[in-house]
Amino acid sequence: MSSDQTPAIPDTDAELAWLAHPVAAIDHDSRAAARARQQQLTKPPGSLGRLETLAVDFAGWQGTPLPTLEHCLLRVFAADHGIVAEGVSAFPQAVTVEMIRNFAAGGAAISVLARRHGLDLRVVNLGTATALPAALREHPAIQDYQLAPGSGNISTTRAMDRGLLAAAMAAGAAQVAAGPEAQLFIGGEMGIGNTATSAALLCALLQWPVAAVVGRGSGVDDAGLGRKRDAVQRALELHLPHCHTPLDILGRLGGLEIAALAGAYLAAAQRGIPSLVDGFICSTAALLASRCNPGVSDWLLFSHCSAEACHRDLLLALQARPLLDLELRLGEGSGAALVLPLLRDACALHAEMATFAAAGVSGAEAGA
Amino acid sequence: MSSDQTPAIPDTDAELAWLAHPVAAIDHDSRAAARARQQQLTKPPGSLGRLETLAVDFAGWQGTPLPTLEHCLLRVFAADHGIVAEGVSAFPQAVTVEMIRNFAAGGAAISVLARRHGLDLRVVNLGTATALPAALREHPAIQDYQLAPGSGNISTTRAMDRGLLAAAMAAGAAQVAAGPEAQLFIGGEMGIGNTATSAALLCALLQWPVAAVVGRGSGVDDAGLGRKRDAVQRALELHLPHCHTPLDILGRLGGLEIAALAGAYLAAAQRGIPSLVDGFICSTAALLASRCNPGVSDWLLFSHCSAEACHRDLLLALQARPLLDLELRLGEGSGAALVLPLLRDACALHAEMATFAAAGVSGAEAGA
Repeated sequence: MSSDQTPAIPDTDAELAWLAHPVAAIDHDSRAAARARQQQLTKPPGSLGRLETLAVDFAGWQGTPLPTLEHCLLRVFAADHGIVAEGVSAFPQAVTVEMIRNFAAGGAAISVLARRHGLDLRVVNLGTATALPAALREHPAIQDYQLAPGSGNISTTRAMDRGLLAAAMAAGAAQVAAGPEAQLFIGGEMGIGNTATSAALLCALLQWPVAAVVGRGSGVDDAGLGRKRDAVQRALELHLPHCHTPLDILGRLGGLEIAALAGAYLAAAQRGIPSLVDGFICSTAALLASRCNPGVSDWLLFSHCSAEACHRDLLLALQARPLLDLELRLGEGSGAALVLPLLRDACALHAEMATFAAAGVSGAEAGA
Repeated sequence: MSSDQTPAIPDTDAELAWLAHPVAAIDHDSRAAARARQQQLTKPPGSLGRLETLAVDFAGWQGTPLPTLEHCLLRVFAADHGIVAEGVSAFPQAVTVEMIRNFAAGGAAISVLARRHGLDLRVVNLGTATALPAALREHPAIQDYQLAPGSGNISTTRAMDRGLLAAAMAAGAAQVAAGPEAQLFIGGEMGIGNTATSAALLCALLQWPVAAVVGRGSGVDDAGLGRKRDAVQRALELHLPHCHTPLDILGRLGGLEIAALAGAYLAAAQRGIPSLVDGFICSTAALLASRCNPGVSDWLLFSHCSAEACHRDLLLALQARPLLDLELRLGEGSGAALVLPLLRDACALHAEMATFAAAGVSGAEAGA
């Protein structure tokens, strides 16, 4: 985000060179036309508040004064985290695979929301500690990369090597770089231990203190919170001396699904698809994507402020204004999916409301 | 709201005696059952934040552990305000009727949202300065009471006499007291000048200073804001010595549509229908309803914090936690309609998510 940052992509990382490719251009003419239209709709100017801004944003992203929001991609990236061995989570590691099954079976929160809002949901498994059983590997709603049996335990080793990092980011990018044109990308995540991983990433990226950043995640108790802080602290002491770029940080301290999310946000921005960012983990991935390529931030929309410790501060650091603040802390992309009706309403109001002239409604009085 | 308030309903007001009738009882067994179910759904306990609370609230209101939210009433109450003669609004008074036409024709913001969310929208005209033309009086989406040509100019006279107050509140009550059982009532309002009226009501009800309460409404300029403050100040000086009860305040300083809204919130609570309160004007009506009958507050849900001056403080005074904060200031019920998908998602997640047992997902580890 800062202009004086170390160049993000070393020349030697040919597999990662795509990260620095320019993002798509915003259509400022369409933004201006949409802004002018908002002034003509039968309401006091500005009275739809942030919904007006959203309609203008989508006009600029879609390159039309009358944006629509029908085709939305929803990808839930899953992976396991070696740091779970340090006792940092309230839930056993097996839950990652169990929840992948639940996503596919339609019983998870994001499954319910995807059905309700017509979202094309697919689960992308980057790597679980135990490989998925055949029934899941072959499930049409699951794409199984299984790049590794999870990331390394960052308190004792690096999360992933450069090749694995490149593969995970490419897997994320592949979700938005192929198939029919989407009007919105929503990323979600599932990975027992990934709030610990995200906390380590944020401490490294923002130079924030461990105590302020490490939170309870899915609900770890006081003893677990102490172990989580210790493990993150040890990880930082081990890896920070070797971190010179955002990619160093992501490779040493990150998770496979976080790398995939960052890759997806980057590729979406390059392809001209805005991303609706979910909660704490996804915001961390968004920060990484923006550090790798600052243009990405023009293509991000932040859905909600979660209840996880320091997410509010992270959003401030991202200069992001979330749309909801409902004490959510589930992940899966659930907060983003909940915001989608607001975005669609914003586009529909923009397109379907009558103008003052068409409805025969008087405008504001001069000097009133 | 306070327990030491002056009795709200004098014995002599037979037509208003219904206001004090008890509200329906909350079903605490259904609330407890819904709360228990939330603990069994495949997510960390509490991780759906306020959506969990909403599902539990609707369980208590509907008397079932598995609430649904299909049939929602939406009534937009319209009226004119004599205080407009003091130059307090950015828009001419004719806009009230013009917008009634726009609601019925489908071009207003609330028309768009009602279509999108399957809301049964009707416009209820309490009294416009110029009576509605025949084409609108007979329109199937409009119910025309035309009790008076608007309320009196409160800076020089009382808004309405006791009979007109009773008629306006009864008209509001009639909207929820007949017809098929609704699961939610949404009230909206339209009335040029009604932020001035609401400001006067709040100053009287909460002893707040005029300068803090009077805002720009639909967008009045600095000179108009000065006139608006002066007019509200004069109204308070004229009427406050004669105000001993909330109904005195409503009758002397209120508006016909605000009285109807208060009546609707009251009747809905008595009939066991929760109300989703829209913005600044509707919150003022909700405060009045609660002052007339404190039980009403158990049946109110507040949709959003608007951009109008002091709405945030009003919500605090109501001990209300709005669900959205998007700088809306349109009225019409638009903020409430925008919240509806969140409420429906809350009920759907509650009903459709798999339990840990059914999905074979491990729960939190003891001592983790």
